[in-house]
Amino acid sequence: MTQNRCVGTVWRATAPVLVVHGGAGRIVPEELSAARAAAARRGLRQSLAAGMTVLRDGGSALDAVIAAVLVLEDDEQFNAGRGAVLTAAGGVEHDAAVADGATRRAGAVTCISGVRNPVLAARAVLERTPHVLLSGAGAHELARREGLALVPVDWFVTARRQQQLTGIQARPELTGGTVGAVALDVAGHLAAATSTGGTTGQLAGRVGDTPLIGAGTWADDRSCAVSATGDGEALMLSVFAHEVDALVRLAGLSLGAACHQALRETEARAGTGGCIAVGPDGTVAMPFTSAGMFRGAIDATGDPRIGMFAEDTEC
Amino acid sequence: MTQNRCVGTVWRATAPVLVVHGGAGRIVPEELSAARAAAARRGLRQSLAAGMTVLRDGGSALDAVIAAVLVLEDDEQFNAGRGAVLTAAGGVEHDAAVADGATRRAGAVTCISGVRNPVLAARAVLERTPHVLLSGAGAHELARREGLALVPVDWFVTARRQQQLTGIQARPELTGGTVGAVALDVAGHLAAATSTGGTTGQLAGRVGDTPLIGAGTWADDRSCAVSATGDGEALMLSVFAHEVDALVRLAGLSLGAACHQALRETEARAGTGGCIAVGPDGTVAMPFTSAGMFRGAIDATGDPRIGMFAEDTEC
Repeated sequence: MTQNRCVGTVWRATAPVLVVHGGAGRIVPEELSAARAAAARRGLRQSLAAGMTVLRDGGSALDAVIAAVLVLEDDEQFNAGRGAVLTAAGGVEHDAAVADGATRRAGAVTCISGVRNPVLAARAVLERTPHVLLSGAGAHELARREGLALVPVDWFVTARRQQQLTGIQARPELTGGTVGAVALDVAGHLAAATSTGGTTGQLAGRVGDTPLIGAGTWADDRSCAVSATGDGEALMLSVFAHEVDALVRLAGLSLGAACHQALRETEARAGTGGCIAVGPDGTVAMPFTSAGMFRGAIDATGDPRIGMFAEDTEC
Repeated sequence: MTQNRCVGTVWRATAPVLVVHGGAGRIVPEELSAARAAAARRGLRQSLAAGMTVLRDGGSALDAVIAAVLVLEDDEQFNAGRGAVLTAAGGVEHDAAVADGATRRAGAVTCISGVRNPVLAARAVLERTPHVLLSGAGAHELARREGLALVPVDWFVTARRQQQLTGIQARPELTGGTVGAVALDVAGHLAAATSTGGTTGQLAGRVGDTPLIGAGTWADDRSCAVSATGDGEALMLSVFAHEVDALVRLAGLSLGAACHQALRETEARAGTGGCIAVGPDGTVAMPFTSAGMFRGAIDATGDPRIGMFAEDTEC
């Protein structure tokens, strides 16, 4: 099998650390207008700023990744919350997960529609139920009971996503994908959050890797926090995020090497993708085998680093 | 933390091999009547016979585990298909998964109701869609299109499960749980299938470990096939079946040792359970940290072995 190039910087950050992504895919300079590139950068910066405010105030990694993902859900450029892609039936179905490395607990929702911020519904599953994953009407009912903001389904649907589905764009304009965040807080705890609208034209009811703990989302203070993006089915079949964890925890690989090897396992299931990951020592890895990945990182010491293309070596 | 005793025989079987379970839980001799014990034995034997017929005819491990699970779904003693437990809302929601070790592909359904045999809907996802997991109405629509047997929801509901939910039994009569099967065929391929009605009184829309590839169900010819049962949330948070796989594949543990260690990871998430597992060399492991587990195994050389309690040392 021909292997896709796996690129992405690995570096040692200083706590607190926050890393975000806005999806991996066919993100190449010649197909992304300057205006859209600037807008994507702005969205990633705003997400980093929101999460870092939490962390600098001594907040938890869990609160920080949720704050960061909230910004990306509300930003219609990205395939999560408002601006999510549409199913084959023209509907909107959101998946989201949060994972807390300190307690190794998690919460997730799948196939919900009408909850403005799916990541808050995922947190409600974690904090308010004995369950880990709720789907459909049951998840929506929990969100309603918890007083989360509900919006009409039309609120999520943008003209751009409708054009993507119906294929009326000669060349669909490049847009962001699944979003996610991982963080290391000053207390040494890790967390991850991921949110998505799935894939354009998917069958109604399709569940991807995002809300599955160990596939698209993972956090364990012993090893790493991971949020993945890319070909969901291949990420699910390789149990991607838990494979990264296992390679660190059981096989002794560095976090960067573990991410690369796990992406190879995903490639063996005929999929490309990428992830953001942070370890308890502050190591940050942001590798991808897709053409590009919207990504950004910030730590205690520096300015935010933003990248999109394979050529962006700073990040 | 006090560790529960982890029991269960590990032995080397001769291909073809089939192992089935009917759930782990509070299965102790003093609470299981002789009549119910005999009925459970009969169900497990029938399941083994159905799957072994496929394997002896040279059929695939995948076809065998599906044949074995079909019998247990139709047997109202077990919490899958007919006889499934009821949700808090009094409804029935089925989850099922199949995993093919030869191709490392899988299919699963969650939160479906009205499809007589959920394991066949899981196979349809594997064979007829680009997806791995479909939920709710989308999964039901696929089953309908594929011509699977549909039944009214009442068909699944037994008087015993209604009494369990409403708590009108002074001491609920012991019944079987989640069902599953793993197999090694004569071509050396592995497969796993799992099916469940979830847990009594769960929130509507709750997804457990059963349909999540790597949590309750796993197959990879390189390492093992696994079907799990027990406290679903703890199995999900420990990514149980993929943890077994990783311990074999990455850490070099024997299959029996890997199952035991993975059950410890589940216990660290405050859950007990058990699993059936088979490796490419015919090693069979059937360990559990619950009080008991309904289980059975058969290989090319011998009569079926059936066990229920911790004291059943043959199996």
